[in-house]
Amino acid sequence: MIRFYNGKILTLANGFDITDGEVWVERDKIFFVGDPSDNELRASSFEKEINLDGNLLMPSFKNSHTHSAMTFLRSYADDMPLQDWLTKQVFPMEAKLKGEHIYAYTKLAILEYLSSGITASFDMYFKLDDYVKANIDAGFRTVICSSTNDFGGSPEQDEEDFLKFNGISPLISYKFGCHAEYTTKSDTIKGIAKLCQKYKEPFYSHNSETKREVLECIDRYNKTPTEFFNDLGLYEYGGGGFHCVYFSENDLKIFKEKGLWAITNPGSNTKLASGIADISKMLDMGVNIAIGTDGAASNNALDMFREMYLATGLQKLKYMDASICSADDVLYMATVGSARAMGLFDCDTIEVGKQADLIVIDLNKPNMQPVHNITKNIVFSGSKQNVKLTMCAGKILYKDGVYYLDETESDIYKRANDMLKDF
Amino acid sequence: MIRFYNGKILTLANGFDITDGEVWVERDKIFFVGDPSDNELRASSFEKEINLDGNLLMPSFKNSHTHSAMTFLRSYADDMPLQDWLTKQVFPMEAKLKGEHIYAYTKLAILEYLSSGITASFDMYFKLDDYVKANIDAGFRTVICSSTNDFGGSPEQDEEDFLKFNGISPLISYKFGCHAEYTTKSDTIKGIAKLCQKYKEPFYSHNSETKREVLECIDRYNKTPTEFFNDLGLYEYGGGGFHCVYFSENDLKIFKEKGLWAITNPGSNTKLASGIADISKMLDMGVNIAIGTDGAASNNALDMFREMYLATGLQKLKYMDASICSADDVLYMATVGSARAMGLFDCDTIEVGKQADLIVIDLNKPNMQPVHNITKNIVFSGSKQNVKLTMCAGKILYKDGVYYLDETESDIYKRANDMLKDF
Repeated sequence: MIRFYNGKILTLANGFDITDGEVWVERDKIFFVGDPSDNELRASSFEKEINLDGNLLMPSFKNSHTHSAMTFLRSYADDMPLQDWLTKQVFPMEAKLKGEHIYAYTKLAILEYLSSGITASFDMYFKLDDYVKANIDAGFRTVICSSTNDFGGSPEQDEEDFLKFNGISPLISYKFGCHAEYTTKSDTIKGIAKLCQKYKEPFYSHNSETKREVLECIDRYNKTPTEFFNDLGLYEYGGGGFHCVYFSENDLKIFKEKGLWAITNPGSNTKLASGIADISKMLDMGVNIAIGTDGAASNNALDMFREMYLATGLQKLKYMDASICSADDVLYMATVGSARAMGLFDCDTIEVGKQADLIVIDLNKPNMQPVHNITKNIVFSGSKQNVKLTMCAGKILYKDGVYYLDETESDIYKRANDMLKDF
Repeated sequence: MIRFYNGKILTLANGFDITDGEVWVERDKIFFVGDPSDNELRASSFEKEINLDGNLLMPSFKNSHTHSAMTFLRSYADDMPLQDWLTKQVFPMEAKLKGEHIYAYTKLAILEYLSSGITASFDMYFKLDDYVKANIDAGFRTVICSSTNDFGGSPEQDEEDFLKFNGISPLISYKFGCHAEYTTKSDTIKGIAKLCQKYKEPFYSHNSETKREVLECIDRYNKTPTEFFNDLGLYEYGGGGFHCVYFSENDLKIFKEKGLWAITNPGSNTKLASGIADISKMLDMGVNIAIGTDGAASNNALDMFREMYLATGLQKLKYMDASICSADDVLYMATVGSARAMGLFDCDTIEVGKQADLIVIDLNKPNMQPVHNITKNIVFSGSKQNVKLTMCAGKILYKDGVYYLDETESDIYKRANDMLKDF
């Protein structure tokens, strides 16, 4: 058992109160939260005792939309219009990707996730065997979202993957989805709808990332992407959309009624000049919101602190109202919200019996001082520098800048650079 | 002499090329840059030799607009409308500030600056003796900008401060200015104009931060703040403005013609919902641009990586064009631009004879990998985590997360928190 003591605890199980206390971790689960009695302490044996020195233990961040292996394109093509970026840079480079590349660049992304306090990704890409191996080898949690579209994948393949990857490891799960309406024939999407019905499973896709995407869908079907998916019965068992920048009133109503997750990616929407999702209206309506980084090709950082800051900051600019979209709301989206968006209902809070997916935030850094309000400090001035420890499924994978993985940091960097010659 | 070897060097003296090489520092100055011969090496004696391990040495960031001691209000009042924030929270708290508070909270700000690779601040606040002492004690460079307004300061006081603080230490200098047009009587501003003429000195102020500020000035004088200052002859010897969000075509023309510095503060303008300065148009017109963090009460982080990202990212959103405002342009604003904006012409680049105000960027972190393009990596995915070393005037003040100041980090935090009871 691992004992964290002498710390502050933000459980996020009931609001945003922070209390002094301890957290004990037994194998992959949280075993105790609170203020132990002398008897409880005497009755326990600890393989490791970690003095938190007054720092904050809280649920880890979950990255609810990303393409991990796209780290291979970080800073390869920037400051370009979206269409040129996709057709001239991204697609030709992706065509050269082999399984070994997926493995190598996923490992690189995992290093960055851990340094930002992220313990799980909701990932949409391809060559899933190699992707899954990278996550299992690193001890990192991931939920695969099918990226089926007209250039790869099929409902048959999705069903096979669904049965294969759910249960392959406690760290891995698989959800049905398609890349997007505009990249996928309606027959294929109907095939996926049948799977969602058959297995009573949710459905996810890129949704309304750009205005053009929505207008083209209306041209094709006289419906928005959300209406189109909804009318096909894809949302009967929940799910959500990535980006959700150009949502109509009716789209928001569907998301609210079906309990779908609007997964916002403010960094990517900024860098690609896509626009600002209407998080404020979603909050007002009670739509479920989660936060993802998107891939490193478009963001370019895989940094939840940046995403949280942008999630609130861009709303203030959008509405020219400094009082909009509070820090606490955003912190909840990046932790509990993102976990639930991807179906990780046992990884969302610090409570007994939940998975030990947690982080320690270093409050003894200048950007966390003085201590008027810890959660505001985290959202408005926090950075990767404040991540002191990242634990996934009860295993410490990152602590004080050092990684505890199956490979060294420098080996991962060397391979990532050596492989650039393949593109 | 300190020798940095086995590194990559970005001098910013001639474009953005990065070369392998060495940098030697003698006392407070750069003594050598390049690839030394065996003879040169044999003829030199080094008190310290630092292996850069392939990391990047470059000019430090300069923070060209801030109120350092406002760290005392970080996360005290957020998510509030601007007017409530100022009148109900900031002003009543500031009225209680004593010299000891200015000293303590400036020290806290300096810790944060150093962790973000910033070695100089252009600071506007009050109780200058205590402020100056904090900077000298820490070994940090600062340029004071007068904050004279109707509630404190006067041209007479400014002249006294100008003569007192210029020359008090190589780390300290002083520039004429006023808080803003809307807070300062025209007679006072005219008095400052006489000082600028008498000493052939530039003039700085908050300028066009909000639309309301500009409209009120037009009501009063039938001129924008920039036109008003310009017509009073305040810009005959240069200077600049902080924020510059609501600039007219004519304001931009004046800035261009007079070689003035538009000092942008995108983080503060986001958090306070002030708007997005038109950096892209300024770039097109060849207006001088620099970047500042503003104070921690409004930003809340004193983090140049965040400011650089926002400087380019918000332009992409403003123009809905992903190709606008390149990473190199922004990196230049935050280093060379900011140094020159505040008159630090000997602290701007890595060249022999310049002040040794420099940083080492850790490239061996996941967010800097793979290495397609280092400057894009710094601007689009860089973070405080990548600052390996910060040197000001030839002294290492921060290295591998450890501070080398006259006080310990924990003493500065403790005092900053203990003093909260005074407010």
